[in-house]
Amino acid sequence: MPDPLIQPKVLAFDVFGTVVDWYGSIAREVDAMQLGVSGDEFALAWRAGYQPAMRRVMAGELGWTLIDDLHRMILGELLRRFGIAHLDEAGKKHLNKVWHRLAPWPDSAPGLARLKTRFMICTLSNGNIGLLADMAKNAGLPWDCILSAEVFRAYKPDPATYLGVARVFDVAPHEVMLVAAHHDDLAGARACGLRSAYIERPLEFGAGQPKDVSPRPENELHAASLLALAAQLGC
Amino acid sequence: MPDPLIQPKVLAFDVFGTVVDWYGSIAREVDAMQLGVSGDEFALAWRAGYQPAMRRVMAGELGWTLIDDLHRMILGELLRRFGIAHLDEAGKKHLNKVWHRLAPWPDSAPGLARLKTRFMICTLSNGNIGLLADMAKNAGLPWDCILSAEVFRAYKPDPATYLGVARVFDVAPHEVMLVAAHHDDLAGARACGLRSAYIERPLEFGAGQPKDVSPRPENELHAASLLALAAQLGC
Repeated sequence: MPDPLIQPKVLAFDVFGTVVDWYGSIAREVDAMQLGVSGDEFALAWRAGYQPAMRRVMAGELGWTLIDDLHRMILGELLRRFGIAHLDEAGKKHLNKVWHRLAPWPDSAPGLARLKTRFMICTLSNGNIGLLADMAKNAGLPWDCILSAEVFRAYKPDPATYLGVARVFDVAPHEVMLVAAHHDDLAGARACGLRSAYIERPLEFGAGQPKDVSPRPENELHAASLLALAAQLGC
Repeated sequence: MPDPLIQPKVLAFDVFGTVVDWYGSIAREVDAMQLGVSGDEFALAWRAGYQPAMRRVMAGELGWTLIDDLHRMILGELLRRFGIAHLDEAGKKHLNKVWHRLAPWPDSAPGLARLKTRFMICTLSNGNIGLLADMAKNAGLPWDCILSAEVFRAYKPDPATYLGVARVFDVAPHEVMLVAAHHDDLAGARACGLRSAYIERPLEFGAGQPKDVSPRPENELHAASLLALAAQLGC
């Protein structure tokens, strides 16, 4: 494990679930559309389609595809499965962009503002650049830089993404810390020599499916929020 | 020309010369190093090596190369030509990163802050992502998003760069306006259907080589500064 007395220079953040609340944002918007489906079920089903869709790209079954387009493919299946045939093209396009409008967790914008005073803060998300830029503008997330699978043409946990952050900023891998609410993402980063900070997001999948957010020894830092992380890092 | 009553959604900015003063920043830093060379001459010579170096990449003579690495190649030649043999490796690396520390023109940060209230504002520079992110953090440039030749693996004026901005933000080319102090860059953007705003930077090459910044009819907008551009666009 890197020397904890030597601070990282760059903090790279997972976004969906770590910085923004995809579950609550989608469930609320779908409920408000009064489509006759459960926002809770719709949000969970949409997100559940995400890993299998990325695997189709990584297996070479699909060419390189932006997450906006993967979300739209999954949405097409969901609209059939949930029996929502009457949504027109403009409505589908608008609903698909709900991922650009995800709300931040309450601590995200103030936590990032504090962390930005001492570190280069960037996204490292499988979301595409336009999605992440729209989200940042809408949610007031003060990124120094938006990095995405789109820049590296590879999804996490491909090493090209984690090592790509170090390469972009011309620093050693141990000078980059990945901040995420997902242990598999953090494990991928550590395997490339990056440092890891776990953020508790017990309600990522809603109150009906609470996550186990207990500390694991392999993560260098563990914090209940981005404000708590800022305090741990002396910001 | 696009309907001037329909405003663009995205403003994409050329950076070197348009937003930051490369000439003055480099001349001052080189003079302060007391290397026995003229900062004025050194700055102009370094910049003059830039287009030929990019042409070597575009001609296939060199593989894809980040601007940081092109700057370093040119610097190597300059140190020999100016007879500065005594600079050590750390000194060369530090000097090469002067491009990350370029100072903004006085109107740049406040002008961008105003434009950001109504438009998505991004860079569209041949500079690499890390260079532009370091510069933004250092100079307080409040970009919504950093786009670069590095994202598109092509330098301006390749159409892949101008059209890439529209693709990233999922908008039509005429919804993007390029803001630049260089007519050739603006012509490249217009050829792809983007809109064009010229910014006067009469001292881009120093007081010894004033630029002709008189208006040309092919540019949709012409402004003396980014604050003047903000006023023209109703911000």
